[in-house]
This record gives sequence, C-alpha cells and structure tokens, in this order.
Amino acid sequence: MAKRRHWIEQLAHVELLTPKPEESLHFFRDLLGLEVTAEQGDSVYLRGWGEWFHHTVKLTAAKEAGLGHGAWRVESEEDLEEAARFLEAKGLGVGWVEEGDLGQGRTYLFRTPDGHLGELFYEVEYYQAPPEKRAALRNRPQKRPYRGADVRRIDHLNLFASDPTPCRELFQEMGFKWHEGLWVQGQVEIGAWMAVSNLSHDLAFMRDPTGAKARLNHLALWVDTEGEVVRAAELLREAGVFIEYGPGRHGISEAFFLYVYEPGGNRIEIYSGGYLNFDSNWGPILWEFEDLAERALATAVVGGPPPDSLFAYGTPVVHPQAAPQP
Amino acid sequence: MAKRRHWIEQLAHVELLTPKPEESLHFFRDLLGLEVTAEQGDSVYLRGWGEWFHHTVKLTAAKEAGLGHGAWRVESEEDLEEAARFLEAKGLGVGWVEEGDLGQGRTYLFRTPDGHLGELFYEVEYYQAPPEKRAALRNRPQKRPYRGADVRRIDHLNLFASDPTPCRELFQEMGFKWHEGLWVQGQVEIGAWMAVSNLSHDLAFMRDPTGAKARLNHLALWVDTEGEVVRAAELLREAGVFIEYGPGRHGISEAFFLYVYEPGGNRIEIYSGGYLNFDSNWGPILWEFEDLAERALATAVVGGPPPDSLFAYGTPVVHPQAAPQP
Amino acid sequence: MAKRRHWIEQLAHVELLTPKPEESLHFFRDLLGLEVTAEQGDSVYLRGWGEWFHHTVKLTAAKEAGLGHGAWRVESEEDLEEAARFLEAKGLGVGWVEEGDLGQGRTYLFRTPDGHLGELFYEVEYYQAPPEKRAALRNRPQKRPYRGADVRRIDHLNLFASDPTPCRELFQEMGFKWHEGLWVQGQVEIGAWMAVSNLSHDLAFMRDPTGAKARLNHLALWVDTEGEVVRAAELLREAGVFIEYGPGRHGISEAFFLYVYEPGGNRIEIYSGGYLNFDSNWGPILWEFEDLAERALATAVVGGPPPDSLFAYGTPVVHPQAAPQP
Amino acid sequence: MAKRRHWIEQLAHVELLTPKPEESLHFFRDLLGLEVTAEQGDSVYLRGWGEWFHHTVKLTAAKEAGLGHGAWRVESEEDLEEAARFLEAKGLGVGWVEEGDLGQGRTYLFRTPDGHLGELFYEVEYYQAPPEKRAALRNRPQKRPYRGADVRRIDHLNLFASDPTPCRELFQEMGFKWHEGLWVQGQVEIGAWMAVSNLSHDLAFMRDPTGAKARLNHLALWVDTEGEVVRAAELLREAGVFIEYGPGRHGISEAFFLYVYEPGGNRIEIYSGGYLNFDSNWGPILWEFEDLAERALATAVVGGPPPDSLFAYGTPVVHPQAAPQP
Repeated sequence: MAKRRHWIEQLAHVELLTPKPEESLHFFRDLLGLEVTAEQGDSVYLRGWGEWFHHTVKLTAAKEAGLGHGAWRVESEEDLEEAARFLEAKGLGVGWVEEGDLGQGRTYLFRTPDGHLGELFYEVEYYQAPPEKRAALRNRPQKRPYRGADVRRIDHLNLFASDPTPCRELFQEMGFKWHEGLWVQGQVEIGAWMAVSNLSHDLAFMRDPTGAKARLNHLALWVDTEGEVVRAAELLREAGVFIEYGPGRHGISEAFFLYVYEPGGNRIEIYSGGYLNFDSNWGPILWEFEDLAERALATAVVGGPPPDSLFAYGTPVVHPQAAPQP
Repeated sequence: MAKRRHWIEQLAHVELLTPKPEESLHFFRDLLGLEVTAEQGDSVYLRGWGEWFHHTVKLTAAKEAGLGHGAWRVESEEDLEEAARFLEAKGLGVGWVEEGDLGQGRTYLFRTPDGHLGELFYEVEYYQAPPEKRAALRNRPQKRPYRGADVRRIDHLNLFASDPTPCRELFQEMGFKWHEGLWVQGQVEIGAWMAVSNLSHDLAFMRDPTGAKARLNHLALWVDTEGEVVRAAELLREAGVFIEYGPGRHGISEAFFLYVYEPGGNRIEIYSGGYLNFDSNWGPILWEFEDLAERALATAVVGGPPPDSLFAYGTPVVHPQAAPQP
Repeated sequence: MAKRRHWIEQLAHVELLTPKPEESLHFFRDLLGLEVTAEQGDSVYLRGWGEWFHHTVKLTAAKEAGLGHGAWRVESEEDLEEAARFLEAKGLGVGWVEEGDLGQGRTYLFRTPDGHLGELFYEVEYYQAPPEKRAALRNRPQKRPYRGADVRRIDHLNLFASDPTPCRELFQEMGFKWHEGLWVQGQVEIGAWMAVSNLSHDLAFMRDPTGAKARLNHLALWVDTEGEVVRAAELLREAGVFIEYGPGRHGISEAFFLYVYEPGGNRIEIYSGGYLNFDSNWGPILWEFEDLAERALATAVVGGPPPDSLFAYGTPVVHPQAAPQP
Repeated sequence: MAKRRHWIEQLAHVELLTPKPEESLHFFRDLLGLEVTAEQGDSVYLRGWGEWFHHTVKLTAAKEAGLGHGAWRVESEEDLEEAARFLEAKGLGVGWVEEGDLGQGRTYLFRTPDGHLGELFYEVEYYQAPPEKRAALRNRPQKRPYRGADVRRIDHLNLFASDPTPCRELFQEMGFKWHEGLWVQGQVEIGAWMAVSNLSHDLAFMRDPTGAKARLNHLALWVDTEGEVVRAAELLREAGVFIEYGPGRHGISEAFFLYVYEPGGNRIEIYSGGYLNFDSNWGPILWEFEDLAERALATAVVGGPPPDSLFAYGTPVVHPQAAPQP
C-alpha cells in the first residue's frame, strides 16, 4: 500500500451564499457567537473564538443559498505546487489566484468532479486580538465571548453530489482517509465520511436524490460539550430558528449533533464530540441505507429516526422540491 | 521550513510496571473499565472499549512502579525502516525485535536521550470482539461495557526527564509538533507538550526536580465527557483511590482532568476535551513557571492551584522523596 | 384562599404489573440499576441507590401490564386518619389494611375518580445497607452501584384517565398544587401536572383518548444529570430496548427526558432536571393542545415533535389500539 | 412527634451590602446574568431569569460588605400573623412594616438569636416581562438572557453565627427540617444545614471562629447543570474574579459548587444539583469536623480539600483576620 499523501492539513474555511445577508449575519454572529474579522464587498468574514486563522466562515450575499467554495490549507508551498499539478493533470484545475482572498496567500482553485469549487493555499494570516480581547490563557487567540451558542471552531463540510463516488475517490487520492460509508446493498454509494485529520470526518459527500450538482448539505460548527449543543438547541428555538433534527448522537462519527437552517436557508450543524482516529489503515466502515433500522442507527444512536429532509434538502433549493416548512 | 516528517501516526500503547499487579489490575479493569485482551507471563494486556488495537495498556509485575516502555505506531514499513535508521544514527537505537510483542509485528527499540525505552512498529493485530461483545454500532470494536469509569482510549504519555530539552528535540525531529511549553524566564525548560496527531498533546516531557532519569509522570486515559470525569472522581474516591488533583480544566491543553495514583503508585490522568490543532506551524505557546499565578493558570483555568507533588512525584519513587500520603 | 392541606409529603412507591416479570426485572435491575430489596410472592421490591425507603418500585407479575397502585406517604398518623376520613366521605375509600405491605405500616386504600388504586401510609421501614454496601458519604443510604443507568430515585407518576378533571380536583383538595395544564381551547382538559412537593410535578393526569379507565401513562425515574439521560439512551438502545421519544427537554416542567417501554410494555421515563416551585400560589400555566406548534413546545423545547403514541399508548394496552412496533 | 409547622414556604430574597456598588452590580448583572428589576435609593433589585418574584437579590451600597437581611415568604396572611406572634413571644421580634419594601406587602421584621435581621411577608409582586422579554415557554417568567453565568434562581443562604445552635433551633421551631450537621465529637455544633423546602438545604448556620455575630458566610445562586458551574468558573476567572474553591461536589448536600468573592467582598456560591428530600423525619446526618478526612469528604466528595478560609472568612471582614489575597 502506497503511503498516503500529506499535502492537506485541514479544512480552512467555507464560503456560504445567502439571499438574506443581514439575517444570516445576525444568526452567525449573535446566535452562534462567531466573531467578525472583516467585511469586504458583499462578504463578511467570521471565525470562532478558538480559531487562529483570519476567518473560517465567509458569508456572501447572493441570489440563492448554497456553497461558495470550500478551502483547505496545505502543509507547505511545495505541497501546494504538487497538489495543483495533480489537480491540473486530472482536468479539475481552475487556476491560480496570485493574490488570495483576505487573510490568505496565493491560492489554487479547482472543481470537484461534481463541480463544487475548492481552494488550496498555504500562506495564512493569523488573527491578532486587540488588547481588550486578549485572553488570560496564552494558548487562546482571544477571550471566549460567551455570546450565543459560543461556537469555538469550524468542524466539517458535508456536500451533496449527484454522484459521491468520484468525489470521494479524488479526495482519497489527495490523502483523505475514508472512514465510513452508507451504501445500498454494497452497490450504490449514498454517503462517504472522510478525514484528512484525526477527526471522524472533516469532509463528507452524500448522494443528492434530486440529481442536482454541487449543492451543499451542511456546514458543521463545533462547540465544546454536549451540554452546549443542548443549550444551543434551546437558544435557537427560542430565537425562532428552524430546528430540523436533534439533539442526538450520530451512529456514524458518534458525535453529538443538532441540525438547523440558518435564515438564508443553508443547513448548519452544531456539533460536539465524536471519535478520533489516528490510524491511516482504519476503515471504511460501511452501513446499509435501505435497511431502515440500520439507517436510523447510522444516523443517530441517541435521538429519534432521521427526517427524510436530512437526505434530500440542500442548498441551493432545487424546485419543485420544497424545503420543509418550519 | 522543511516539511515535518510523517513517520509516526500515534501513541500505540504504554507498558506500566507495578509492584501490586493484582490491585493494579483491579484498578484498570474494574474501576477504570478497561478490557483485558490477553495475559502472558507477568503481564496483562488491556484496551479501552473504543480501541481497535490489540492493547493500549500493558501492565507488568515488577519490583517498582514506573514506565516499562512507550510504543508508537508508524504509517508504513518504509517509515519504520527510515525511523530506525534515524535513531540508529543518533546513537539512540537499541535494536530490532523480529517477532514483536503480543498483537504487534517487528519492532524497533530505542531510548530517549533521558533513557526511556521506546518501541516503533507498523504491523498491528486488530481486536476482534467475540459475538457477545459485538456492538450494534458498526464503527465500534465492541459494545461499551458500562463498567466503572468506562475509559474509551489511551490519550497521552507524560514523561519526567532529567533534562526535557533533548527529548523534546528528538521527537520534533521525528515529526512531533511542539505545541506548548513551561519555562523559567525563557531560560530553563520545565515542560514540553507535543503532538504527532491533532491532539493538544499526545506526548509531554517534564523536568524531573530530583534529577532522576527516565521516570514516568503520568499516563492519561480518555473518557468522552467532562461529566464522566466528574463521575470518575466520585467513583474512585468512594473506592478509596488516592485523588491527587482535580477535577479541573487545564490552561495548557484546555482539557478536563483528574489525577489519581493507581495502587502500584503510577499517576493516572482521567482526561477529556481539550483543543485540537490542525496546523503544523502553530506554537509553541510558552508559559512562565516561576510566576505562580501564571503557573496556576497554565495548570488549571478551572480548579484550584496545583499541588507541588504534580511537579515532583513520579515513578519509580525516588527516595527519600516520599509520595504524598493518601 | 384557604391554606392548602399538608397531609401528603411524597410519592412513596409505584407498583407496576408486568406479563414478563423476568425480563422486566432484568430491565429495572441491570439496565436501570435499581437495587432489589426484597422478593415476595409474585413481586420484587426495588429502590434507587439514593433512596431511604424500603422500596419505591414494586414489580408484580400479572397477565397484563399496567398500574398496580400508587402509594403516597403522609406526614403523620393524624394526617393519615384525616385523609382517610376525607376519602371515605368522598365515597372513594376502599378501606384499611392494618398490616401494610413489606416496608410500610398500616395503610389506607382508595380509588381515584377514574379508578386507579391508591395507598396512603405513614410508617415506613428505612433501608439499612449491609456493611459491604455502606457509603463513605454519611448522607447516602448506600454506595452508588454504578450499574446501568444508575437511577437514583423515583420522580413522578403519570396516569391516563378517561376524564382527568375530577382526578386533578381530588388531589388538589388533598393539597397538591396544580402547576401546568394542557387544554383544548380552555374547554377540555387534556393533561394536568401537579405537585405535593417542590418538584415541577410528582403526579400528572392525562386524558386517555381510548376512553379506557385507570391506565398508566408512565412512571418517571430520576438520574442526576442530563448527561446521564443521554448515556442511558445509548445504553438502552444498545440493549435493544424500544425508545419511544427523546432525549429532549420538555416545555412543561422543563425537565430532560427519555421515554422507553420496559419489556412488560409499561412506558418508563428517564428524567433529570426541571424547575422547582416553592410557591403555593403559582400556576396553573395553561398550554393549548390543538395548536400543534404549541403542543410541540409544551412537550419538548429541545428535541423534535412528540410522537402520537405519547398521547395514546398506555398500559394495559387497549385493543385494537396497537403499541408502536419497536 | 408534633407535626412540623408549615408557615414558611421559601427563601424569598437576600439583601447584600457592598462597599463597591458599581463593581458588585457589574458582577451580578453582567457576569452572573441576573436581571435588574428596579433601582431605588442606594439599592438595586435583581432576580434570576427563572424567578417570578419581584426580586431575590437586593444589592445595597454600604460602608462594609455583609448581610442586609434575609427574607422568607410565608404561605398565607394567617401564617404571617402566627409566625409574628411566635417571634414576638421569643423576644426576637423587631416589628411590623406596614408598607413593605419594593415588590412585597406588609412585613414582619425579626432577629435571629445571633442578630441577623430577618423579614417575613406573604404578599408579593410577580414579575411581568415586557413584550420583548416574553418567553415562548409559557411557564417561564421571561426569556433566558444567555448572559454570563445565566443564574436561574436564588438557592440558599449560609450564615455565620457566634453560636449556631440557638439559630438552628429557632428555625426548627418554625418548621425547618434539620438535614445535616458538622460537629466536634458530638459536643460542639460547627454547622447546620436546614430546609423548609425539599432542597438539601435552603438555610445553613456555621460557627464563626472569630466569635463575631451575625456575619454572612455566603449566598448561593443556582445554575441548571454542572456544566454551567464549570463554564461559570472559567468565565469568572477570565474576568478576574477571585475563586476561592471549586468546582467540586459537596459531601453534605451532594451539590456541585463553586465559591467566589464578589467585588464587594461577599462570598457567592454558584450551585447546581444536590439531593432532594421529601421526608420530614429524615436527618439529621452528623459529620465529624475534627477528623480531617471526614471534614474533607463532608465538604467535597469531588474536588480537593477545603481551604481554611471556607470556615473562617465572612462578611463583614473581622480585623485583624484578613481575607485571602486573590
């Protein structure tokens, strides 16, 4: 077995598109507790209080909700070059942006086989807290704000794909480990949970039942304890946010979850816990989708069975498939 | 900056020596909830219910408490060869064991600069649960036993060293990231917290104030929530185990902790939470040891100031320095 | 306003009937962690580890699941006499049992207006732990067993009634406070949550949609933290117990809940938290049943909407209304 | 045994004196999350978000820290008259205030045998939330603010007394149950934990080692989970508040605790959990003070041994006994 590639270190940020930028900003900043780092053009740049990078969520006004792009940071400039050549050779390259976005250096753009836009970069601007936000704890980029759900950091990106298999294979070739899968009788891949890190997953692809391309299933944001997920559920419900599912504990990943829709329509997961895996050889663990009991267990070992919308609703919304009415 | 090495994937197991093997086994199996995988000679092999490797704790009867060895798993046989050549060249090699210990393949032995014995191996035997222990969750090696503190997995190894600096430098050269440090006025290194994984640390070295070599400060074992650390504290106190410190939340690592001494005398940390780091460039964050307020914060942002024993007691016990009397 | 009566101090125990006594005993003792105090005839007597009374759950083999009786302890023998006279005058008296059941003194039997059997008594036998179960904590009746869900104590009894109104009124006259209610447009009473103690409720009546009399909706058992409810959910699911609903946090009572069916078919709630009320004048707070959003909020501010079975399934099972198929 | 009196229902509020009113207000409102109901003269009136009474903490500017008074609500006007006659006959009456303080009706003032000022009243003004603070949950007086430690309600009052025995006896005569005690060899009473409610205690007296009269040991405020106590500890430490002890779990009461000093110098306990007792006949459970291991267990079954200050520091500060230097 060839040693896996170590180009990519982590999911660096995600750009979300929203048709309701003011309401979405209120949601991420005031209800979830993210910190605003910068505003530019139609975009606001945010990060969790425990994050050192310039931003991890970029919120951009758009006609429709959905994914702007996902961005991954590589380990070195050499890795960036290598990865770019690899993607170019695959015919998936979009090209270089010599002057990257706010907070990042030169960037290579690419497309997944399903068409999601991706970015790779190495140079990153580290967040510098102003004096009034400096933490007593030296290992924290800033004081914890104790605002809303107090999200600490980005966790993972879950993408709908008309066919998840080539997407999963691409990221495996780039060094991601394939940890878990949801399949129909070993024949049809419904979902793939992958990690370039020790997380249970930092990237997932799920089959889009509408056949649409390059949609977003959800972005997951981390809070430190299960109690904080429960607290977030109550806070968000009191604030009138649509709660789709949870809290509960997943079978796949074993993490504690809550799914909500932000005002722009994108699904957001509030997330904590889950196993870690340190072994490149481990997995994939495959679950059966058609067996409803198995699917329910894969989705939630704690919490009731999943709503159908979890496997069908994505952004942008595909008509005539309608979103559940909160 | 040269790209860091990716030889080692994880701390694979730790061998603890105990002068009270029966009492120690009771502690790890019945109070902490580890599962016994095998017994051979003077040793019992154990693992947490969430672990896939054959064992992660090896308990060996001995005249004195202390570290038998620490073992790390590498990513491939090629990595094993490379790492062995590197250690050989450093003059730290001990040699190959073609037939490794129970549950592992060929193994390279080495010494840290302070003299701790280390093992590197790639081939590992995966645990196979007997039918009655098979979990409904496919991604679990076995059912959770719900016994005692229900430890899920090994977390990290903290070693005393007469001088931590060369130990820290050795592991940095082998690809470990240096995340945090405790120093006297930037001159004398008191402690180094390092990680080859995304954990805040999976290995630490602390300066041994007795000047002794190659002692153990503690082995940390993971439970899934802070609530379980609190539950473990009560369970262990009711069982008459000596509780040295905690529960609390560390400044360094931000993890929730509890320090106890197992019956053989080795310090064990029950551990949960803590930040993750995905960035090879991050750190080290340095804290000041002589400033008592800073040291207290580094030790515990939640929970009282550390007892002196935390920085002085290790195994084997160095006489006449006595262990605190439980 | 007349001062409320202070006859009754607490819900003392509940007798559950089960057609599967062995499986039910396994559930309560091994999965929920109750302690067996005594066995006699077709009954097993159990209590939570934190309880001082001889027993709080009596499990009796029977042809059908359901309520045997509920028992309340009064404050004094004088209160017992007064309450008996009151019930006698209401035509609800059944009579005295001079030698009470195991662990209790003379007992007065009565029926609720819907026909549920009730007991009142004052004299009670306190549990004496054998030496090996004595706790280090002097204020505990015994060591915490750390077995299964580790239930600490009985919490409340929820009874189906063909008409909850006269039941609620009877207990109000006996000194229970009426804290919350679920109504159809202020006309039809669907549920009443009442307390003789400072709990949000220790007794509830819900309208039985089948029109049957004197059925059991559920018995609630207390664990100390929300985390333990979540842990119980996973433990019970792994053990193959049917989970009907939860975990979540109720609107009414604000407590954290999990509903399961024990093997005999009785619904059991694993319960923690909830508000306390110290004010006799407070309440009732009325919620609207027909407004589905309001009903969902009343049922769970955290957790999804309630399953229909929560308002329809009870024991004994009324045919042809079938239980949900686990 | 005579039936206990049922005059008093609950601890209604506590007045704290502070030499630093601005800093104290910041502490209670912004860090602990209490809501300001009114301001009048030198006083600010506050309540927890889960409380229905007009106020539960009254903060009054004064030359020295300490207790202004404790106030208890009785069950009826008749109870108020009876209790007043009882106190008058004891020679402990101070007299009637026909127009009570903000938010309360006519009030009877009295002194404990040690000289603490007490109030009894029945009529109370219920808090009415303005529209923007109205909760979706009908059983809540207002929305949860999600500010700071988010204290929900007052829990208990712990008073230093030069001799706790006559204080304990007075409240027993008024219907308080004596749950736990700390004694020197059964001869000298060091502490008494009492409850008029089902709480483990809502009132405690501890022997003041300085011999001073009528000082405050602490006021305890409730948060809903142990996790919130831990969160409060970190929040308060980051804010520079002096943390004296905790978090931990008491032996006596079994509650989860954190002791801090508010800026005016009064000790405040952040508190959650603990047993409930529904039995008038239960207790007292007596613990031994001189046996250091027993004292440590009584103080904290989880968490290290108590600092000496816990049994010595009170407000007003008695010179030359100095407060610990934060």
